[in-house]
Amino acid sequence: MGKNDIVKPSILPGFMELIPEDQLLFNKMKDTIRETYEKYGFIPLDTPTIEKAEILLAKSGGDTEKQIYRFKKGTTDMALRFDLTVPLARYVAQHYSELTFPFRRYHIGKVFRGERSQRGRFREFYQCDIDIIGNGTLNIIYDAEILSVIYATFKNLGFEDFTIKINNRKILNGFFESLGIKNKAEVLRTIDKLDKIGENDVIKELKDIGLTENETNKIINFIKIKGTNAEILESLKSIEVENQVFEMGLQEMSTVIHYIKSFNIPDENYAIDLTIARGLDYYTGTVYETFLNEYLDIGSVCSGGRYDNLAEYYTTQKLPGVGISIGLTRLFYQLKETEIFGEKTPSTLTKVLVVPMDEVHNEYSIEIANLLRNENIISEVYFEDAKIGKKLDYANKLGIPYVILIGGNELASKKPALKDMRSGNQNNLNLDEIIGILKQNI
Amino acid sequence: MGKNDIVKPSILPGFMELIPEDQLLFNKMKDTIRETYEKYGFIPLDTPTIEKAEILLAKSGGDTEKQIYRFKKGTTDMALRFDLTVPLARYVAQHYSELTFPFRRYHIGKVFRGERSQRGRFREFYQCDIDIIGNGTLNIIYDAEILSVIYATFKNLGFEDFTIKINNRKILNGFFESLGIKNKAEVLRTIDKLDKIGENDVIKELKDIGLTENETNKIINFIKIKGTNAEILESLKSIEVENQVFEMGLQEMSTVIHYIKSFNIPDENYAIDLTIARGLDYYTGTVYETFLNEYLDIGSVCSGGRYDNLAEYYTTQKLPGVGISIGLTRLFYQLKETEIFGEKTPSTLTKVLVVPMDEVHNEYSIEIANLLRNENIISEVYFEDAKIGKKLDYANKLGIPYVILIGGNELASKKPALKDMRSGNQNNLNLDEIIGILKQNI
Repeated sequence: MGKNDIVKPSILPGFMELIPEDQLLFNKMKDTIRETYEKYGFIPLDTPTIEKAEILLAKSGGDTEKQIYRFKKGTTDMALRFDLTVPLARYVAQHYSELTFPFRRYHIGKVFRGERSQRGRFREFYQCDIDIIGNGTLNIIYDAEILSVIYATFKNLGFEDFTIKINNRKILNGFFESLGIKNKAEVLRTIDKLDKIGENDVIKELKDIGLTENETNKIINFIKIKGTNAEILESLKSIEVENQVFEMGLQEMSTVIHYIKSFNIPDENYAIDLTIARGLDYYTGTVYETFLNEYLDIGSVCSGGRYDNLAEYYTTQKLPGVGISIGLTRLFYQLKETEIFGEKTPSTLTKVLVVPMDEVHNEYSIEIANLLRNENIISEVYFEDAKIGKKLDYANKLGIPYVILIGGNELASKKPALKDMRSGNQNNLNLDEIIGILKQNI
Repeated sequence: MGKNDIVKPSILPGFMELIPEDQLLFNKMKDTIRETYEKYGFIPLDTPTIEKAEILLAKSGGDTEKQIYRFKKGTTDMALRFDLTVPLARYVAQHYSELTFPFRRYHIGKVFRGERSQRGRFREFYQCDIDIIGNGTLNIIYDAEILSVIYATFKNLGFEDFTIKINNRKILNGFFESLGIKNKAEVLRTIDKLDKIGENDVIKELKDIGLTENETNKIINFIKIKGTNAEILESLKSIEVENQVFEMGLQEMSTVIHYIKSFNIPDENYAIDLTIARGLDYYTGTVYETFLNEYLDIGSVCSGGRYDNLAEYYTTQKLPGVGISIGLTRLFYQLKETEIFGEKTPSTLTKVLVVPMDEVHNEYSIEIANLLRNENIISEVYFEDAKIGKKLDYANKLGIPYVILIGGNELASKKPALKDMRSGNQNNLNLDEIIGILKQNI
């Protein structure tokens, strides 16, 4: 290709790329999630993006094989990870003897799915996961703790009005068993669609997969049990389902609900909801979904649950766990669509632009920027040769809140001019005064 | 695949995966680099990992095409990025009208190269890049600023004894031109190998590519000019090379060296070195390499330079820039090999493990952990049913410095027992006293 052939700059469809203003908002959310996860003692992991195809596809079937990015280099059959759970399972199995259990890890990283392209769906996106993995056993109280991390995360992200919905697969499965239903997994998957397809279609589908009218009615009445958490638990106890799995699920859920109170989670932020089933096969107990009540059409923004056996494809060790995932790329896209972020936000982290009026003021300007950075104030110097208007324009366009102007008078008096870009006010001040004002206002 | 078939858990050769202890050390370095870059007002970018192959390979040739991970999904020809510079070029060309110049960005992310597998070389690794891109022009002082960011970064990483070597391609190219040498790029590449193959082999190679004995001697004598920065500049001025490019390079280097002083960089941390050429074609002025003097065999740990035209393959806009890159994965691996990190470091971020002696102490333990987290102290509760020895063992193995024990007395008196895991000392104290001690010691 010759030097004069221009390739039109573009990215692949279904991939997200942000302008600086949005990137900063995105990173702020990512940092908040990270800080929250860390405060609960989750340890960061970072596994390879590319893994052996046989590892990622050990549990084969479903959409995974269609969507995975798989390729060969030489004879090596490799693929990009499509979630962070499979790599976690492989990691814990591989490093089992080097880890201390319960193993608490968080992982914030990109995953890849070659889905059909559609608005708001991305083929490369961030997942923000936490999991607690036990060695053989894992106390049910950790299920309450995980719920408290969901609460803290969305609270720290600035949300108030959200509900973490909680259910227990054992309650559903035990109830289905008590009715003599064999294809419980199919029934679960059908119920999970209630939100999307509505009650009538669920009823229709349940009949289609072979349930009797009576069974279908019982199930619909069961999942429609409503009330406060205490009332729902009371109802579940009173219907006296003769089934051990059901009893165990009810016991687990009662314990989780009991401990949630200790974690200081307000009553309005969580609710038992018997319609929550979660599509994924591997959940075996508690399941969570989280809804922003002002943005219900976004769907669940944080989901997860308890599983009996994380790594069955990679080890014979029994490793039960509980975890959640936030699909940050999609969440960010959707929040951005709702215009929740409001008007224009800065396109830089810089708080102070130091502007030498002329070349002879460069050194003093650099000295001031050094000093500000030593005070942990993010600062830069504008070195380009330009008119003062263009220099101030740079600060304005990026949303830098303060400019320090250095001209002849400022250099002679050692009193730089501090300009507040929002008010337009400008004052010649000592550096100590300037640092004081900046520390108070940024 | 049946449930009982176990796939041996492993990752591909040439990929890095860390145990928690090392991951925390790695992340600390990554965070330090990020914080330093941010303090200078660099804006974070995050471009897609997968791009169109035609974009990544617009500048074709060399090792890139052999090493790139390229694959098709449907008819789409895509590839994994092999550096962060090509995506930056594409980004700036694509978003040109949305950006404010000089555009200062940092990018810390993984890149992928299917290199021949060898010890200490990785196929997936982190690069930590900064670049300042001008629109048409970019003041030479930014080259001094970039050097000051290298200095601050390695200082903040905890290094003292390092040297940032600086040269200017125009000085070398202008000198070669003055000798009438045509194949300047080949000569540059040969000189760049001086460190690896030694003077004799460089002389041999220069002759092999067609230089006369006289030309070879002149070049060798030229790049061997030594002394303080001032002395080298003086020598370069005194040899009176009649060449405009040389003059321009000398002028640029003098300016950079002049401004470096304003950035408060100690004399011992930078040095003009005329043997630094950098292999990459696109550098056109200042070039940097950074050496840890106690670990010289690691090679350069941070390199970069000035280029005239970042995005010539994607736009007709002239976009000069200056930037650097730290190959963090390789650097971490090499530092780890030198045992610089010393003895065992913690495998968790948790500072306090709250241990209920029995189930009845769970609630009070949760309450204490909530309180500590509110005070920004990373805390977790140990909920597993186990003997006290096993619970303390969890803290010991992870390197958690403090344990708070809650038994009957502690619950009754509201005076939890604080155990310092290093000294073994244990005292029953008020929560206020405990928080005071923790804040002082962690």
